[in-house]
Amino acid sequence: MKVRIGREELLTGLQRVQGVVEKRNTMPILSNILLEAKHDGAEIVATDLEIGMRGLYKATVLEAGGVTISARKLYEIIKELPSGEIELTSGDNNWTTIQSGKSQFKVVGLPSGDYPALPSIEREGLTPLAGAGLLELIRKTLFAAGDNDARYILNGLLVSLTTTEKKTTLLRLVGTDGHRLAVAEREVGTPNAKQPAQDIKAIIPKKAAQEMRRLLEEGGDEEPLIGFTKNLMIFRKSGLLLTSRLMEGNYPNYQQVVPKESGKRIAVNRGLLESALRRVSVLSKDKANAVKVSFAPGGMTLFSSNPDYGEATEELVARYEGEALHTGFNARYLLDALSVMDGESVSLQMDTALSPCLIQEAESPGFKCVVMPIKI
Amino acid sequence: MKVRIGREELLTGLQRVQGVVEKRNTMPILSNILLEAKHDGAEIVATDLEIGMRGLYKATVLEAGGVTISARKLYEIIKELPSGEIELTSGDNNWTTIQSGKSQFKVVGLPSGDYPALPSIEREGLTPLAGAGLLELIRKTLFAAGDNDARYILNGLLVSLTTTEKKTTLLRLVGTDGHRLAVAEREVGTPNAKQPAQDIKAIIPKKAAQEMRRLLEEGGDEEPLIGFTKNLMIFRKSGLLLTSRLMEGNYPNYQQVVPKESGKRIAVNRGLLESALRRVSVLSKDKANAVKVSFAPGGMTLFSSNPDYGEATEELVARYEGEALHTGFNARYLLDALSVMDGESVSLQMDTALSPCLIQEAESPGFKCVVMPIKI
Repeated sequence: MKVRIGREELLTGLQRVQGVVEKRNTMPILSNILLEAKHDGAEIVATDLEIGMRGLYKATVLEAGGVTISARKLYEIIKELPSGEIELTSGDNNWTTIQSGKSQFKVVGLPSGDYPALPSIEREGLTPLAGAGLLELIRKTLFAAGDNDARYILNGLLVSLTTTEKKTTLLRLVGTDGHRLAVAEREVGTPNAKQPAQDIKAIIPKKAAQEMRRLLEEGGDEEPLIGFTKNLMIFRKSGLLLTSRLMEGNYPNYQQVVPKESGKRIAVNRGLLESALRRVSVLSKDKANAVKVSFAPGGMTLFSSNPDYGEATEELVARYEGEALHTGFNARYLLDALSVMDGESVSLQMDTALSPCLIQEAESPGFKCVVMPIKI
Repeated sequence: MKVRIGREELLTGLQRVQGVVEKRNTMPILSNILLEAKHDGAEIVATDLEIGMRGLYKATVLEAGGVTISARKLYEIIKELPSGEIELTSGDNNWTTIQSGKSQFKVVGLPSGDYPALPSIEREGLTPLAGAGLLELIRKTLFAAGDNDARYILNGLLVSLTTTEKKTTLLRLVGTDGHRLAVAEREVGTPNAKQPAQDIKAIIPKKAAQEMRRLLEEGGDEEPLIGFTKNLMIFRKSGLLLTSRLMEGNYPNYQQVVPKESGKRIAVNRGLLESALRRVSVLSKDKANAVKVSFAPGGMTLFSSNPDYGEATEELVARYEGEALHTGFNARYLLDALSVMDGESVSLQMDTALSPCLIQEAESPGFKCVVMPIKI
């Protein structure tokens, strides 16, 4: 294999795969990328066996072929090289020479044939999406998903695609770790008469959503495409292919957790609530971040106390017309939910002091957060 | 005690002492600040028994007195408060109320009488310094001092003040951890006929130098003042007083380590050397960062190798006229030295492959770095 490629082009490709390659080093080759010189450019492939990424980059191919080399070391080297052409040549025993000006690196490689194959996929059945819309849904739900939760399925995001009556596609994402839940949906893409109505429900690993987010954050004019097979999610954007195995299992019946909008409803300024929560949580107990919250006509009160340091009280002006209600929350969970909200005011709604609390932005009916209260 | 103080003024005071207060919590009161309401403002004091800081801040004193409260918790609260007046009132049992708008905090306090006294100092014997000059000397030497080195004295900086023939003051700072050494000196301040010539040599803890640097980085027009007693360094700037115990012990005879400028001298572009070193160190072995360095007429070559990943070679154009010389360095030590250098080119000078290497900027005779080579 022998290719010549611009430093910025190669760096872009290497940056994109850093999150995909395996870090735990269970199989040495999974910390490598596969670099393949094809007739139309250089392909960079990475996988951790669950998620795979493949991208084609502009390059002058002097000799076709492939090799696999350390993703991290190659990235660290290229990052420090000045702009200009870089020549990569793989030789005997897969040693690969990287030449740029008077800098020369010979790095250990493994045979390209040993690299795990990415799942083969069909071209059909992909739904075009508005990239900004998908990015927003991921931002609004990912924080609520579990993080190495023992209940395996909670470490994923539920993705559903439904065809509406108007033949547009409704995309819904759901994340929950059992303590909080976020559901966000919106119509994405344009009506597509050619496309058969296909309703999909799939659970993708958190890491796949993070990688999609990173690719979407790069921007670009092209609409991304998303599709599902029985075991796989396929995501295409700007010539890049991201695949992810789907998670197997039953996602909790989240709809029964989302309260009906009939509870006691308090409306409060989002920014003021956020900063008041940050202050009272300074004096809440370290782990649980417990904060007492009271709703009363005309106001909301936050209270925390810590035997070692003291106590904090915050009063906020709020619109509320029910009976007084005294409850408690993990301040971190409220702050996480507020941090993905926009607009000036938010509403909190709950039936009783121990029932789930529905948090919503003023003008975004498609986005619902639920936080479970705690007994204080 | 009862004071009213602007949020920004209080925050500045609290920010300044965060680095001083003890973090290991050996004596609970050392994680507190002492807040004292005096007739001319509010004084904030912090100490870890080695270093002390005292500053006076603009405040309306409604009732004189003092209290000590957690430096970190108070800072975290004030940081999250909006701009405006804050009222602090200490009451029974030293509980202190912090009131700002509708935010109220009651924090646990300890009696001000229990707070360790800062050493009392005389007003005389302080030398005025140009702040920017001192800042530069700290920047150029602090990196070379030890970090929790078993040889206790190496965790300090040697400070010497000498009166020159022209009656100006020459300030010299020295840092070394035994593997590298940095000496920086410059004339500071203006000739001062009134001041008795007083030559001083003292060793200050690294933490004292770091705190001085932070205060100097705040800028300001006023010239800082520095002075020494038998056991103490005193530093004054913008109404602030920083004191530090001096370290006891003999500082190594650093002058005998600094090579005479008679060795083989190679001159090379600083930026190019830095980025080449960063690249080759990607493939050097993890701990020692070993890089082979060769000087030859017309060029400098860097080489590293790592059995797991491969090897790197870098060639740099350089001015050199001696016999070829092959040596080796810890790349980290060279990079640390280069990172505090300015100007386009640097020179490296050494007698033999295993003798100390003198690194200098092109136009700064007052600054010398020495790095010990390693056998590769």
